[in-house]
Amino acid sequence: MTMKYQDLVRQIEKKQSFLCVGLDTAVEKMPKHLHQTPDAIFRFNKAIIDATHDIAVAYKPNTAFYEALGVAGWQAFEETVLYIKSKYPEMFVIADAKRGDIGNTSERYAKAFFEQLPCDALTVAPYMGSDSVQPFLTFKDKWVILLALTSNNGATDFQFTGEEKKLFEKVLDTSKNWADEQQLMYVVGATQAEMFTTIRKHVPKSFLLVPGVGAQGGSLSEVAKYGMTKDCGLLVNASRSIIYAGSGHDFAEAARAEAKKMQQEMASLLKEYR
Amino acid sequence: MTMKYQDLVRQIEKKQSFLCVGLDTAVEKMPKHLHQTPDAIFRFNKAIIDATHDIAVAYKPNTAFYEALGVAGWQAFEETVLYIKSKYPEMFVIADAKRGDIGNTSERYAKAFFEQLPCDALTVAPYMGSDSVQPFLTFKDKWVILLALTSNNGATDFQFTGEEKKLFEKVLDTSKNWADEQQLMYVVGATQAEMFTTIRKHVPKSFLLVPGVGAQGGSLSEVAKYGMTKDCGLLVNASRSIIYAGSGHDFAEAARAEAKKMQQEMASLLKEYR
Repeated sequence: MTMKYQDLVRQIEKKQSFLCVGLDTAVEKMPKHLHQTPDAIFRFNKAIIDATHDIAVAYKPNTAFYEALGVAGWQAFEETVLYIKSKYPEMFVIADAKRGDIGNTSERYAKAFFEQLPCDALTVAPYMGSDSVQPFLTFKDKWVILLALTSNNGATDFQFTGEEKKLFEKVLDTSKNWADEQQLMYVVGATQAEMFTTIRKHVPKSFLLVPGVGAQGGSLSEVAKYGMTKDCGLLVNASRSIIYAGSGHDFAEAARAEAKKMQQEMASLLKEYR
Repeated sequence: MTMKYQDLVRQIEKKQSFLCVGLDTAVEKMPKHLHQTPDAIFRFNKAIIDATHDIAVAYKPNTAFYEALGVAGWQAFEETVLYIKSKYPEMFVIADAKRGDIGNTSERYAKAFFEQLPCDALTVAPYMGSDSVQPFLTFKDKWVILLALTSNNGATDFQFTGEEKKLFEKVLDTSKNWADEQQLMYVVGATQAEMFTTIRKHVPKSFLLVPGVGAQGGSLSEVAKYGMTKDCGLLVNASRSIIYAGSGHDFAEAARAEAKKMQQEMASLLKEYR
């Protein structure tokens, strides 16, 4: 099942949620009773997914956590993506990979995530410009989520370069020539909530993938206040605060409870700001 | 064997070469007789490596080409890196992955390439700033190769943002606070050879990894003229023009011949410009 803009909006409406669960899965952080199982990563992810699929609208496995384990990790990444799209095809699956390279190389990354695997979207770094992004956009049923203003401290090092128009604004404006809100989203960190007003001047309708709520300290209500559109236009990600909410045998229930808390806040924010 | 700045300089001196061979290996581009073998990618790489190790100083497998094949591809990537570092430990191995994410994620990427695998260096995208690069630099025996001015057309979209100081110059200047030329290199494309004069004003001693010679059309002699330092300070990469030089059973010999041609030009450039 491909996920178009309207499919995503429908999911959000139905579940009253714009929650993306980040699968930054690391063996040493998961419950001890899982450590010794050979497929610990996938088993953990499966339990989290089964416990949250009706509350969340998206999952975002972070490739770094899988690559760190080599071949076995890549296998767990593949199993996770395949499991989600076969069991819960309505879920929006984002490979958080922050790829981007010259054209003939980006083509290969596109194959990796969009052909070899059924991911719906890929995060892409904009530094190398148009031809580093274009190969992903040739997959018309897939999404590019371009880094714009990130949630980390280092965001200020380069993303505000420029006089009248800052680099992140230039990324937003330039990329609008490549695709519209039906295929292009942006990463905008929750830790800079007041910036959402500026962001919305450039991309009034686009979906924004928002990391930084939860462990990184951003405020969900501020994000909704300044960033929400009439179609919601937000996917707010939480990783550690949800998937590591519990450390016992009931870790999946604990994750569900934490996700549910966020979903309930999201439901009232959808009422308030849409 | 770890590769320090002086080790690299010694290799260059000994081999009279600053050639990096890019392993952008794709099954459909390799000789037909290899297509059906289950480990075609690794076998192809091994043959290329065995045929060029005394002429090149570095290999640069491009992760995209391996990821495009899923688990089997990642396996071939690992085998390739392990083969190089076990058989030819003096070779400088660059994982061309263009990673970069928030701190706790970059940590994982660092583990993937520097712990799980014995790569000497990783290409890193600077967009997310200091904390996206720092985790790689905590591996004191390893190298970060930061994107500065790339060789593709899209390079002009964002890398020249800014008035007096352009984004790529800011990347050079800012990153000098993170590490010096003993641990940090930069990607500077050969297709903009006249820019090497500007680059050298900012980073007079750093090694530059230079793609864009060969298939992308950059000039080796121009790069040397404007970019070479007394320690050479250049690693010039060629991928397709070398590894796909031949398409028959003698593909490895053809690759060697092509690499040798570049090495001979490099030997005279080292005499001329150093």
